[in-house]
Amino acid sequence: MPELRKDPVLGRWIIISKERSKRPTDFLVEKAETTGGFCPLCPGHEGNTPSEVLSFRNDLHSIKDTPGWQVRVVPNKFPALVIEGNLDKEGEGLYDKMNGIGAHEVIIETPDHDVDFAYLSVADMALVFKAYKNRIEDLAMDPRFKYVMIFKNHGRAAGASLEHSHSQLVALPVLPRLIVSEIEGSISYYQYKERCIFCDIVNQEIKQEIRVVCQNEDFITITPFAPKTPFEMWVLPKKHTSSYRGQDDQLLYSLAQLFSESLQRLDRCIPGVPYNFVLHTQPLRSENLDYFHWHFEIVPKLTSIAGFEWGSGFYINPLPPEEAATYLRESL
Amino acid sequence: MPELRKDPVLGRWIIISKERSKRPTDFLVEKAETTGGFCPLCPGHEGNTPSEVLSFRNDLHSIKDTPGWQVRVVPNKFPALVIEGNLDKEGEGLYDKMNGIGAHEVIIETPDHDVDFAYLSVADMALVFKAYKNRIEDLAMDPRFKYVMIFKNHGRAAGASLEHSHSQLVALPVLPRLIVSEIEGSISYYQYKERCIFCDIVNQEIKQEIRVVCQNEDFITITPFAPKTPFEMWVLPKKHTSSYRGQDDQLLYSLAQLFSESLQRLDRCIPGVPYNFVLHTQPLRSENLDYFHWHFEIVPKLTSIAGFEWGSGFYINPLPPEEAATYLRESL
Repeated sequence: MPELRKDPVLGRWIIISKERSKRPTDFLVEKAETTGGFCPLCPGHEGNTPSEVLSFRNDLHSIKDTPGWQVRVVPNKFPALVIEGNLDKEGEGLYDKMNGIGAHEVIIETPDHDVDFAYLSVADMALVFKAYKNRIEDLAMDPRFKYVMIFKNHGRAAGASLEHSHSQLVALPVLPRLIVSEIEGSISYYQYKERCIFCDIVNQEIKQEIRVVCQNEDFITITPFAPKTPFEMWVLPKKHTSSYRGQDDQLLYSLAQLFSESLQRLDRCIPGVPYNFVLHTQPLRSENLDYFHWHFEIVPKLTSIAGFEWGSGFYINPLPPEEAATYLRESL
Repeated sequence: MPELRKDPVLGRWIIISKERSKRPTDFLVEKAETTGGFCPLCPGHEGNTPSEVLSFRNDLHSIKDTPGWQVRVVPNKFPALVIEGNLDKEGEGLYDKMNGIGAHEVIIETPDHDVDFAYLSVADMALVFKAYKNRIEDLAMDPRFKYVMIFKNHGRAAGASLEHSHSQLVALPVLPRLIVSEIEGSISYYQYKERCIFCDIVNQEIKQEIRVVCQNEDFITITPFAPKTPFEMWVLPKKHTSSYRGQDDQLLYSLAQLFSESLQRLDRCIPGVPYNFVLHTQPLRSENLDYFHWHFEIVPKLTSIAGFEWGSGFYINPLPPEEAATYLRESL
């Protein structure tokens, strides 16, 4: 059983997901692709994954766990958290821990092994975003969970262990520290200004223009004022809304339009760049929040940068976001 | 002039350290060693670094910026922050920024190009720790600075761009977010318990024994209860003290004894493992704090792990710290 443990000083939870019989040196080498050319995420190989929990099918006569799907969501075969069991919160002296209960799922974004997420058709990418929404709605019904984290690792350097385009979902019985910090920061601002800080950011960016990468009627992509890495991008809805779950199909299509444009601009600037993106949304079962604003953060993984920041939480970024935005605007 | 910018939501400061005429793709490749076999940190090459701000010399007749030193501290030739100027704090709408004023120095830990920090003699390592202390004391006199961060990148994967063993120092006009979070967490605990949380951690670890790597009379090395990575280690003084500056020569020797043993144990477990270590100490010009406790955190950089965590602040660790401690205890 994996374990959730809380850092007693920082209040940050981490997952201890014990792997069997590893020797110390096994942690040093890059994880090899163990599939040897065989892709468990491709159509026809559905039997190589756990049974699907959701699929969107072009072939309406096709049945579960067979080809005919456009997006397919399955439990992770090597989950960091397990779905069955009780939390059994307990202390160990001054430390706090609980069982590593949660969901860990894989969103297979396309049946096509070779297509890059950035170059999915807008309609196909919108289906991926719809799958995120449906899974959050489903997992929200489990009273053990407080947050659903959705993220994508693109490229080996960003942590992707399989080539076939996919994202991941982790439903957690605790709030991630980063989300807590964002909410605390947003509340401080709201107490002072009675306005959502993200709405103010969107308004200022539209006015200043210098950090805008692209926008449409509903969404805007900016390079944030204080980015962790070169070419970091945030994609935000222009209209205040704290929960990703509130988006209807039309908005998800509009999101996909801007999101694919943003990723294509990034890919044109730095071909093949590895990146992570993470959905930031409100905790499960909270009412709509006046002070919080859902958004995506896209963080390129640039090997010449990461290093010291890993241990310290302090970032040195060699590229001003205004210049990154200029490159990104001119790239398409 | 570099710029310090504050993330308006998280309150985290980052440095925008603009490099000249980089093209986007330049960020993707590993920084090449541009020295072509020539090491600017070696004795005899003192003219290739800025003039030293401190040195400890075995040859007492040797003069500044010439060989004869055991430890040498010089300003970074490519500083992330600059020492001359005013902070000029200003707003830009809702954003906050200031000039990137600060010190950025390189501590050359040994004249020997080929020696690994972990295998320095205890006396030589103690001199490095003494250099840290002297530089903090000197920089504390500059009223612009609030914190001195000291860290080491060991190995290319951990961000080291030069082979010759060295650490770095950054004096900052702001407090790093991670230190603020640690202090906030420590204060919360102190308010409730009226005890230092780090003292309680040390006491519990000595009692439980399972996460103790090694200890001597003055210091203890543990694998923390909720580690970010496999083999993360903390080195803490057993006696409560909030400021690294309070250590006398005898304590620094004792620290070096335990620190080198800890790093050698790590290196035996995972030969050649890249790592970062960071000194956590109290802010400059604060009185001794009852609730805070200085320490070092040593974080191995394991390529098979880093990925998603980079973007999300959420860590999945495949090795329980109790097992890591067992490996580390048995390695020497």
